[in-house]
Amino acid sequence: MPTLVIANKCYSSWSLRPWLLMKQLGVTFDEITIPLDLPDTKEKVLRHSPAGKVPILIDGDVAVWESISIMEYVGDAFGVPVWPEGRKARAMARSVAAEMHAGFFALRNACPMNLGKKYAQKDRGEAVARDVARFCEVVRQARERFGAGGPFLFGAFSAADAMYAPLVTRLDTYSLPLDAPTRAYVDTILSLPAFKEWRAAALKETWIVDADEVDEEALENYRKAA
Amino acid sequence: MPTLVIANKCYSSWSLRPWLLMKQLGVTFDEITIPLDLPDTKEKVLRHSPAGKVPILIDGDVAVWESISIMEYVGDAFGVPVWPEGRKARAMARSVAAEMHAGFFALRNACPMNLGKKYAQKDRGEAVARDVARFCEVVRQARERFGAGGPFLFGAFSAADAMYAPLVTRLDTYSLPLDAPTRAYVDTILSLPAFKEWRAAALKETWIVDADEVDEEALENYRKAA
Repeated sequence: MPTLVIANKCYSSWSLRPWLLMKQLGVTFDEITIPLDLPDTKEKVLRHSPAGKVPILIDGDVAVWESISIMEYVGDAFGVPVWPEGRKARAMARSVAAEMHAGFFALRNACPMNLGKKYAQKDRGEAVARDVARFCEVVRQARERFGAGGPFLFGAFSAADAMYAPLVTRLDTYSLPLDAPTRAYVDTILSLPAFKEWRAAALKETWIVDADEVDEEALENYRKAA
Repeated sequence: MPTLVIANKCYSSWSLRPWLLMKQLGVTFDEITIPLDLPDTKEKVLRHSPAGKVPILIDGDVAVWESISIMEYVGDAFGVPVWPEGRKARAMARSVAAEMHAGFFALRNACPMNLGKKYAQKDRGEAVARDVARFCEVVRQARERFGAGGPFLFGAFSAADAMYAPLVTRLDTYSLPLDAPTRAYVDTILSLPAFKEWRAAALKETWIVDADEVDEEALENYRKAA
C-alpha cells in the first residue's frame, strides 16, 4: 500500500490535494503527518523526501512529490480516472489545475488555508478580488462546458477539483463574496464525506502555525469548539 | 496542424518550454508570436487565450494553457513520448518538472531569461545559490539513476528537459558557477539544433522588455552583434 506523507491538516493546502483525490477515487493508502514549523520538521521531512517537500507519495521504491505530479502518478499507477474522459475536457482540466499549481498568489498569501477559523467578510484588496473572479470564471466555464454529468467542475470528481479544494476552503474561511454557481460548487466540496473526514482530523490537531493565522478576530473558532 | 501562441523568444521562458518539446519530438505546428508589454498585448492575448495567458496551444476546438499541461496534452493527443519510459523514471520526471513549474523563484526573479545578453559572474545572493544547488542536485540524481540512455536528464529528451531549458539559459546568461555534470548538461541543451533555432529567432527580435534587463553592463550583447 502506498504511503502519503503530509503536513498539518489544518493548514497544509498542498497536502489536502492528493489526500482528497485518493480518498475520492478509492485508492487506499497509509499516511504520515509531519507538523510544520517545529524544530525537527526539516529533519523529518528529509527522511522521506529528498527534495525536502511534502506532500510526497511513497509507493514501494517510487517517490513522487509536488501535488500535481502525485495526481498524474495516481492515474498512471493505480488505473483510476484522475482526469475527465474526453480529450477536450481533459485539456481544460489539466490547464486549470496547472493554473492553480503556479498561480492565485494574492489569494493564497492574503488568506492562508486555516480550517480552524471563520472570519467576517471584508475588502481584501484588488489582487485578491481578481483571483476570486478568475476562480468564478473557471467554475462557470468548466461547469457550462463539461459539468453535465455531476456537481463537480468536469461532472465527475477529478484532479481539478482536488487542486482547487484548498482554495475553496479559503473562500469559505474568509467569507469571500461569490456568485451563485461558485457558491453551489463550494458547498459541494465542503460537504464531501472525505473532506469532512479531513476537517474533523484537522480540528483535533493542537499545533498552531502563527504565520497562517491572520491578525483579525475570528467570527468562529471551530477548533476551540471541537 | 496545431497552433502554438507564444511571446517574445528573447524573454519568454514559459513559451520556450512547449515550443522546444514539440520541435524535439517532431510535432509540427504553426506559431503566432505576441510581443510582451506593448499597448495591445493584452487584447491580442485574450483573442487566443481565455485565461489571458501565453503560451497556449490551439488544436482544432481544443485550447490548452500552462506549459506543464500543454506538455501532457502533446503526449495525450499526438502519441509522442513526452515522459520517460518506466513508471519510476516518469514519476521523478513529472516531480522535477512540477518543481520547476511552481518553484525556483529566487533564480527566476533575480536572473530573468534574456537570450540577448551575457553577464559576468557575481554573487547573486543566498537564495539564488540555493536554487542553483537544487538544480545541480536534480541533474545529478536524474542522470545517475535514469540517464544511461542519452545525454538528457532521463536519457532521451523529455518534458523535464523542456521545463528546465529556460533555467539552463539563465545559468549561462548570468555565468552562474556550476559543477561539472551540470555544466555538461547545460551545454547539451544549448547546443540542440532546435534551441539554436529559437535563439537565432530571438536575436532577430527588436522588442526590448525593460523589466527583464538587469541593471549591469553586459559582457556580451549578442543582439547587437546579430
